[in-house]
Amino acid sequence: MKTINLAEKLALFDSHWDPKVVADYNDNEIMVVKFQGAFPFHLHEDTDDFFLVLEGEMVMDIEGGAAHPVRTGELFVVPKGVTHRPRAEHECKVLLIEPKGEPNSGDPATAAAKNRI
Amino acid sequence: MKTINLAEKLALFDSHWDPKVVADYNDNEIMVVKFQGAFPFHLHEDTDDFFLVLEGEMVMDIEGGAAHPVRTGELFVVPKGVTHRPRAEHECKVLLIEPKGEPNSGDPATAAAKNRI
Repeated sequence: MKTINLAEKLALFDSHWDPKVVADYNDNEIMVVKFQGAFPFHLHEDTDDFFLVLEGEMVMDIEGGAAHPVRTGELFVVPKGVTHRPRAEHECKVLLIEPKGEPNSGDPATAAAKNRI
Repeated sequence: MKTINLAEKLALFDSHWDPKVVADYNDNEIMVVKFQGAFPFHLHEDTDDFFLVLEGEMVMDIEGGAAHPVRTGELFVVPKGVTHRPRAEHECKVLLIEPKGEPNSGDPATAAAKNRI
């Protein structure tokens, strides 16, 4: 039980699309992650996907739908089953919440490790 | 499905200890809230309690334990069953996550309405 400083956690790594777990909330993992470039389109069949931009700007592309800019201090929740792709022209720092064990790519074969820092 | 600007939502109300729902994540409500003064000690029997400070500084008092400062860009998760009290000398803006229907005070008799904005 302790205060978690997100900037300090983000300073511990440089990799992109590599979420790091910083805390737990019930059956969910609270993660920080750095986005740069475009992630593949994917979906999560059984869960919503929570994104809060801590620094920078990203775009959430919805397949067959709009491209939603998400800037510092803005959040976007992708409903379960919706195919989406986060992308960022420049590095963007994000707070991410997903259920424990959920592959970030929607597919265990291509998922990041989600190590704890 | 849209981007939610937290500062814009926080500008819509002035009340303290009055969480407003801005989005949903699975069975949870994502809320913004303004703290000032001290909330009563309470606990949530069946859920963790998620706090992320968006602006300002609060203290999370743990009954029989430490007083944890939580500043802008810092988060604190109170595990379920732990008696706690958030307090803030000056107004502090917070992102709060709790399961839908969970009383913010831990007790339906004293809970805030959690209206949606």
